[in-house]
Amino acid sequence: MSGLATQILQGDRRALARLLTIVENAREGGDHALAALFPHTGHAHIIGITGPPGAGKSTLVSALTKAVRAQGKTVAILAVDPTSPFSGGAILGDRIRMRDLSGDSGVFIRSMATRGSLGGLARAARDAVRILDAAGFDYVVVETVGAGQSEVEIARMAQTVLVVEAPGMGDDVQAIKAGILEIADILVVNKADRPGLDNTIRALKLMLELGHPASRSQVSGHHGAMMSTPAPTMTSVDHALWIPVIVQTVATDGRGIDELIGAIEAHQAHLRRNGHLRELEQRQIEIELQDRLREALLTRLLENISAQDLSTLVERIQQRHMPPHEAVDMLLAGLRFEPSEE
Amino acid sequence: MSGLATQILQGDRRALARLLTIVENAREGGDHALAALFPHTGHAHIIGITGPPGAGKSTLVSALTKAVRAQGKTVAILAVDPTSPFSGGAILGDRIRMRDLSGDSGVFIRSMATRGSLGGLARAARDAVRILDAAGFDYVVVETVGAGQSEVEIARMAQTVLVVEAPGMGDDVQAIKAGILEIADILVVNKADRPGLDNTIRALKLMLELGHPASRSQVSGHHGAMMSTPAPTMTSVDHALWIPVIVQTVATDGRGIDELIGAIEAHQAHLRRNGHLRELEQRQIEIELQDRLREALLTRLLENISAQDLSTLVERIQQRHMPPHEAVDMLLAGLRFEPSEE
Repeated sequence: MSGLATQILQGDRRALARLLTIVENAREGGDHALAALFPHTGHAHIIGITGPPGAGKSTLVSALTKAVRAQGKTVAILAVDPTSPFSGGAILGDRIRMRDLSGDSGVFIRSMATRGSLGGLARAARDAVRILDAAGFDYVVVETVGAGQSEVEIARMAQTVLVVEAPGMGDDVQAIKAGILEIADILVVNKADRPGLDNTIRALKLMLELGHPASRSQVSGHHGAMMSTPAPTMTSVDHALWIPVIVQTVATDGRGIDELIGAIEAHQAHLRRNGHLRELEQRQIEIELQDRLREALLTRLLENISAQDLSTLVERIQQRHMPPHEAVDMLLAGLRFEPSEE
Repeated sequence: MSGLATQILQGDRRALARLLTIVENAREGGDHALAALFPHTGHAHIIGITGPPGAGKSTLVSALTKAVRAQGKTVAILAVDPTSPFSGGAILGDRIRMRDLSGDSGVFIRSMATRGSLGGLARAARDAVRILDAAGFDYVVVETVGAGQSEVEIARMAQTVLVVEAPGMGDDVQAIKAGILEIADILVVNKADRPGLDNTIRALKLMLELGHPASRSQVSGHHGAMMSTPAPTMTSVDHALWIPVIVQTVATDGRGIDELIGAIEAHQAHLRRNGHLRELEQRQIEIELQDRLREALLTRLLENISAQDLSTLVERIQQRHMPPHEAVDMLLAGLRFEPSEE
C-alpha cells in the first residue's frame, strides 16, 4: 500500500496535507494513494455550503464547526474558490477568519483555488473530499464562494447542501436564488438580526412554494429532492422526498446553530433511509465519470495530433476557411473503439 | 446555402431569432446554417460585460447601447445567465429593464440561460455571438450575471472585457475581484455617485498596481493583457501591451458613458494594431476546439459503451470495489486513433 495512504489512515496530518497538495497540483502518485484510500471512504457526512458573497458563510462554517466539535465529532473544512481562476490567494481572508479553529486537532482546514480549468478544480476537490473522508473525519465541509454553475458543480459532491443567504442583499439576489435554490437541501438565512429578515424569509418561502414549474412534477437532477407545494417549515418532515427547510442563524453569536445541526442531522437520517444515499452516490459517480472521461479523452486525443496539424487547423478557422465543428469532425475521423478483451 | 443563413444575411430578424433558438437547444440544422454564416463573421466588435450582482450591468448596457446607437452603429445584446442552470426565467428582470431599447430596429436583444451543463451554455453562446456577428451588427455585447469561472468562460469569447463594480458592495467583493480583475480590459466603476467611491477606486488601483505576482512577469492566459506596474489612468496608453483602464460611470443618468465608449474604441484600436486581434482569436479558437472536442469525444465514447456495462461500473465504484480513475482507464482501454488518410 502507498506509504502516504498508510500514514493518513494512521492519522498523520502532515501526510494528509502532502497528499492534498499532490492532488491539487495533479502531480504523480496521487492516483496510487487514492486507490489505497478509496475502500476507506463512505463514512463522513459531506456537507456543501454555498451562497452569495457577504452572506457570512465562513463565520457560519466556523460556528457550525465549534458546535459539532462540542459533540466530540471531528471536522475537515475544504474552502474551494472557483472565483479565482488565476491566483490562489483569494480565500486567505476566510482562512484568517477561521484561525480560531486551528488550534484544535479535531479540525482540519484546507483551501483550494482553481489552477487552470474549473474541471480541474472539481476533480481536485472531489479527490480531496475522498481523502478527508478516508482520513476519518466525521464531517467534511466543502465551502465555496460566489453563486453560479461552478458552485453547482462543487455542491454535486456533497450529501447535504446548505445555501446561505442574508437579509437585504439587493435586488439582484433573486436572480441568484433562482438557480441556487434548486440545489439546496437546507436554506440558511444568516445575519437574521439584520433589517429585512421578514422580506427575505417571505421571498424564500414563496420561491419554495412556487417551486419551479419545470421541476415540480419530476425529480430534479440533484439529490432527487423535489420542490414541494406545502410551505416548508422550520422542522424537517419525515417523507420519502426531502422538502428543503429554512433555518435562521446569527453565526456571530451562535443563534440558530443548534437548529441548523438538527436540520443537517435530519437530512442525514433521510439520506440513510430507503436507499437515498446510495442513489445519490450513484448519480454523483456518473457525473464524476463523465467529467473524468472528458478530460482523459481530450488528453489522449491531443497526444495523437501533432502541434503542427493543430496549429494549421486553428489558422484555417481563424481565416474563416473552416467552421470549428468541421475541424472537430476532422480531428475525430481517426477515432476507433475496439471491443475490450475482458 | 442554408435558407435560414441567407435570410439572416439579408437582415431577417425572425430567421435570426429562429437560428438562435436552434443553437440554444442544440437542435438539428444549426451546424449547417453556422457553416454558411461563418465566412461572414469577423466584423463585429465583441464586448463582454461581467461583474457582481448589483453593480448595475443591465442599466450600463442599456446606456452604452443608446450612446452607440446615437453614432449610427447597430448593437446586438446577448444576456447570458450562468447562475440559473435549471430554470430559464431568471434574467427576465434584465430584459424588462432593457425594454426601452426594443422599439429600435438597430438593437437586437436575446437572453440565454443554462440548459444542462455550463459547457453547453458556453458552446451555445459562442455560436450565438457568431450568428449575431454574421447578421451584421457593429457591436455584439455579451452580458453575464454573477462572478465566477462561468463568467471567465463567457468573457473568453469577447474581444474587449468590461468588469463592472460599484462602490460599497461589502467585504467579500475583494475576493471576487481577485479573479475577475485579471480578465478585465476596462474596469467600470458604476454608481459612481454613491458613497465609498474613493475607497473602491483606491482598492482597484492598488490591485492593478500590485498586479498578481504570478502574472506580472508573463503574458497572462487571456488577451495577452499584462498587469502593469505604473498606475492605470483614465486614458489608455498606446503601448504594445494593453494596460487596464478604470472608468467611472453613473449609468442611470449617462455620466461617464462617453468616456467608456472612448476606452472601448481605444481597446479596439489596440487590438487591430500589431496582430493582437489575430493572436486573441487564435487563442480563443484553441480553447473552443478543446471544449468541443471534450464533448464530442465523450458522446462518441458513450455511444460505444452499453448502458449495462456503465451501470455495473458505477455500482462497483459505489461499493468501493474500484476507484473512479481505474474505471476511466478501463473504459478507455479500447480507444484507438488511426492515422487520417487525408
